[in-house]
Amino acid sequence: ENITILTYCEVQQVSRGGEGFTARISKKPRYVDEVACTGCRLCEYACPVEVPHAFEGNLGARKAICVPFANAFPQTALIDLDHCLLCGRCEAACPTGAIDFLQEPEEIEVKAGTIVIATGFQMTPMEAKPEYGLGRLRNVLDPLQVERLLAPHGPYGRVLRPSDGKVPEKVAYVQCAGSRDRSLGVPYCSRVCCMYAIKQAMLLAGALPLVEVTIYYMDIRAFGKGFEQFYQNAKAMGIEFVKAKVAKNTEDAQQNPVVRIEVMEEDGRVEERTHDMVVLSLGIVPAWQPDGVLSVETAEDGFIRTPELKIAPTRTNQEGVFVAGAAAGPKDIPDSIIEAGAAALEAAAYLKRTRRTSYTDATGSANCAPSTAVQAGCP
Amino acid sequence: ENITILTYCEVQQVSRGGEGFTARISKKPRYVDEVACTGCRLCEYACPVEVPHAFEGNLGARKAICVPFANAFPQTALIDLDHCLLCGRCEAACPTGAIDFLQEPEEIEVKAGTIVIATGFQMTPMEAKPEYGLGRLRNVLDPLQVERLLAPHGPYGRVLRPSDGKVPEKVAYVQCAGSRDRSLGVPYCSRVCCMYAIKQAMLLAGALPLVEVTIYYMDIRAFGKGFEQFYQNAKAMGIEFVKAKVAKNTEDAQQNPVVRIEVMEEDGRVEERTHDMVVLSLGIVPAWQPDGVLSVETAEDGFIRTPELKIAPTRTNQEGVFVAGAAAGPKDIPDSIIEAGAAALEAAAYLKRTRRTSYTDATGSANCAPSTAVQAGCP
Repeated sequence: ENITILTYCEVQQVSRGGEGFTARISKKPRYVDEVACTGCRLCEYACPVEVPHAFEGNLGARKAICVPFANAFPQTALIDLDHCLLCGRCEAACPTGAIDFLQEPEEIEVKAGTIVIATGFQMTPMEAKPEYGLGRLRNVLDPLQVERLLAPHGPYGRVLRPSDGKVPEKVAYVQCAGSRDRSLGVPYCSRVCCMYAIKQAMLLAGALPLVEVTIYYMDIRAFGKGFEQFYQNAKAMGIEFVKAKVAKNTEDAQQNPVVRIEVMEEDGRVEERTHDMVVLSLGIVPAWQPDGVLSVETAEDGFIRTPELKIAPTRTNQEGVFVAGAAAGPKDIPDSIIEAGAAALEAAAYLKRTRRTSYTDATGSANCAPSTAVQAGCP
Repeated sequence: ENITILTYCEVQQVSRGGEGFTARISKKPRYVDEVACTGCRLCEYACPVEVPHAFEGNLGARKAICVPFANAFPQTALIDLDHCLLCGRCEAACPTGAIDFLQEPEEIEVKAGTIVIATGFQMTPMEAKPEYGLGRLRNVLDPLQVERLLAPHGPYGRVLRPSDGKVPEKVAYVQCAGSRDRSLGVPYCSRVCCMYAIKQAMLLAGALPLVEVTIYYMDIRAFGKGFEQFYQNAKAMGIEFVKAKVAKNTEDAQQNPVVRIEVMEEDGRVEERTHDMVVLSLGIVPAWQPDGVLSVETAEDGFIRTPELKIAPTRTNQEGVFVAGAAAGPKDIPDSIIEAGAAALEAAAYLKRTRRTSYTDATGSANCAPSTAVQAGCP
């Protein structure tokens, strides 16, 4: 009821005033009128330009004008001006006249009594680890690409390997590809990779009854509620788990990825194994840095610092600014939801304290009604 | 300010009325007047009876009358009537006349608008796994006993092994001793055992510079913030990690525990290794069953069932009853604190909803003031 969602925006700067925070926000131009657009996609069908579709892990294509993905909110088209030919076909096709090439960025100011940072995560960039071949070997994929391959409306409609459309018979997962690795600056465990790899392995086994899936791992971290049973089910389904460090990936003449592993036994035996497709279980790194925007500190790992981690894990070093989910460190969805609840509670308690104080300061009354600045921040 | 703590009590029955919950609570007799007792411990010094001290893992002794442990709240003595000789020496020693052998159990009724279950955990009972020797082999300990050995005011004042007071030179940890084990009915991972074993191993290495610590494990689950770095530090300190399944523990003529392991390599080699002391990293099982007391459901694992685990992990199947911490599954302290925040938020939101409804129902007014029943439950 009293929630405002601003999309396609960037927070430029947050400053702290007497009564709370003021955020300067820049809304990027969509070149499509949000109110007029009905999401009918006629513009997409008319557009002659095809661009690799980031949402499909670049395995499929999208148009230069499009609704960014199937569940996007709002269901409104947007023009990617970097690839647009300015041919005007979308404008001609649009039944509501929503195309507007003259849109400019818009400046928005929001006042709030408190802030919760929930800026999510990105996957470890693998450029730093070229020996794993991501982006260079065509059948070495990242896990979000496999999510799309497995999705009913994915880029190919079924699970095929990218180089030649072959149905993969041997798939390998490389765990800790971008976590627990000092050389990448990611010394920590990313928490979610064991479980998403096992989940994908089981879905692959369901989609491709003849597939052999191998998971190369250091430790299987099935720590959450029901996780261990899930892992045991995967083993019972025949998914192979090999404790091994992966040194590098190459490929043979048929573009089959070859994984060079050091089996983690006392003899440290080195082996090479060939698969049809290899998935790198990438880790989690922060999606956003507060530098110059909001004066909260980040920790050594780049995530928002939570100085009272053990007793108040959603507090930042800034009074009135809280953090939830993967903005403070790798975390799965249920853990992020729990933290969101804890952050909301802390934020509400903070508002209640400051509300009382600021209102008393301003009018000398002990009345608890919120000031305007604070109302804007009320959940 | 508006918090009431009832100690040495047991909830007998919680029933749901029109306006909330009513809990029938039984307060056990201490045989010591709580108001008169000053916690001076003169009664303890006078008592002639020594009983194994459960808080010290039965490694030390307490008296039949005592303040249960150093940080107990309240700091009030209590008589363990099962071991008391009724000699009356405590009564004679007490400067405030607080001893009262005639105390009876007391019945208390509490009304509340909402309930948060936070009943903690117990360690896996190891009677079901006699081959591990806990309770039978004197130098096979549980991790809470080692906490006490490491504590500055522990039973021996320093780390000695129980059978003969020798300073241990070789200590082993057996991980998953009571977790991930279908034969014990504990198929799940207990989350905390890897990290407490590593912590204790590092503290042992600090307390005993010459000690060799080996950790037999299946997977090291260092998934939390800073956990991986902690694990790497332990390896750098020289703590040995061996991926192995432990079959059983025996002891040699000097009561040195002998661990029979299956090294988890392809050859499945079986070895026996002798240590001075072995610690079983016991898992976590529920501390409390709601049967007959409160009509919330438990899951197959015995913990309180959270039917909306992924979106509202603190809700139980009973409206208005929430759960936090290890009552819903194994969890460490920071995770329990986050969940406590989330549960408090859910409970407050529930109170706000029911408050409005019940007050409106009763008086026809839309006023938001709480009913009496609800006030009692306000945080």
